[in-house]
Amino acid sequence: MSDRLVTACVIVIGNEILSGRTQDVNIAFLGERLNELGVRLMEARVIPDIEDTIVATVNQVRARFAYVFTTGGIGPTHDDITAASIAKAFGVPLTEHPEARAILDAHYPPGELTEARLRMARTPEGAALIENPVSKAPGFQMDNVFVMAGIPAIMQAMFESLSHRLVGGTPLKSRSVTIYLPESRMAPSLAALQDRYPDVEIGSYPFSREGRFGARLVLRSTEEPRLAAAGTELEAALRELGGEPTWD
Amino acid sequence: MSDRLVTACVIVIGNEILSGRTQDVNIAFLGERLNELGVRLMEARVIPDIEDTIVATVNQVRARFAYVFTTGGIGPTHDDITAASIAKAFGVPLTEHPEARAILDAHYPPGELTEARLRMARTPEGAALIENPVSKAPGFQMDNVFVMAGIPAIMQAMFESLSHRLVGGTPLKSRSVTIYLPESRMAPSLAALQDRYPDVEIGSYPFSREGRFGARLVLRSTEEPRLAAAGTELEAALRELGGEPTWD
Repeated sequence: MSDRLVTACVIVIGNEILSGRTQDVNIAFLGERLNELGVRLMEARVIPDIEDTIVATVNQVRARFAYVFTTGGIGPTHDDITAASIAKAFGVPLTEHPEARAILDAHYPPGELTEARLRMARTPEGAALIENPVSKAPGFQMDNVFVMAGIPAIMQAMFESLSHRLVGGTPLKSRSVTIYLPESRMAPSLAALQDRYPDVEIGSYPFSREGRFGARLVLRSTEEPRLAAAGTELEAALRELGGEPTWD
Repeated sequence: MSDRLVTACVIVIGNEILSGRTQDVNIAFLGERLNELGVRLMEARVIPDIEDTIVATVNQVRARFAYVFTTGGIGPTHDDITAASIAKAFGVPLTEHPEARAILDAHYPPGELTEARLRMARTPEGAALIENPVSKAPGFQMDNVFVMAGIPAIMQAMFESLSHRLVGGTPLKSRSVTIYLPESRMAPSLAALQDRYPDVEIGSYPFSREGRFGARLVLRSTEEPRLAAAGTELEAALRELGGEPTWD
């Protein structure tokens, strides 16, 4: 069986994330949901609201990954420059999208579709809309680039609206176990297990909780039987070291 | 007065962040602390534990930003490949660092400094150590690249150990206000204010809380008097729109 790897990159656009003022949660959401759809998140970038940076970043990553998802910067205010920047990246004009206009027309009471709100109907020429069931103003897709809002609840709803457009590859299955043993004590066993299972990716992610050090060990593979076999061996190795493995 | 902009990039290394399994909090911490030191976080990248990717990313960003900070992948297990990758990026061998070795020698009881733990004494040739007051195994600095642990408590302690090595520029001061008004109603006033204050960066970051939409408006400038003047005008504009601004 040959595996097909379908890759993705997320671009989080927003000074507020880089200043530390706002904690991003969109990367984690997209990483998890994409994996369920057989798409592997290979990189995420957080960049400021600067047109040249958005253009350069989008053009760099859209050539390199199967799918690109952006979050942030598509609202009605002067600092929302994502749509204009994406148009520039694709070398097309930014125009009023008739369907987006119709959605806003239907949403706002007569006379309330102001110039600021109309900004949210502008997309790069040729864009396909992404439905926004939460607050109406849509996202859009240009080729393999999906442009979504930054507010997590809206971004998540937009992602569910567009998910049927994605063609995933072989999904990566995983098993994970929490163990309160120092990583350095487990390291030789983990390295030996990794040598015996080159087709299972074995990761060790240390943490400290309430003053105790432990690790989450994660096994990942496209092959369920290999995952099961590696899991059984890992369980035995951890017990031999005196640990009490707790599988998720 | 001329402003000096000192830039930084953060590289978060770890499959666990990209899979959505672990929520990154290091970017936000570094964004905030760097700004206090007069260093502007301009970009953050989350990349997987893949040597070629780490090498390429480090070499791309260390040429472009004044400082680079990496988090993750410097522990004792087989998947901790950051030190080896940084050595490769700089084209130098990975060697046992005598000071790092001495720190581990002093920390572990006789006979417990295993081969796995000794991995944590290896740095690229020529590296300067970064002290780790939490769990001893040090980080290291190569030129403008600072290599730190991924566990937030350890990373934060390492950052405080190294912060005196950073030379900051003109710090960006900020004022921020929370307002429950739709962004689209405030947009014209914000755009007009931005036009009058080109030297003050005005950002609007929408949110939804308990079903209500609002925004945090942030004014940023290196010039305190301009910030104060823009703040006074913003307050008046928001009250005129019927809002109740709450300044942080």
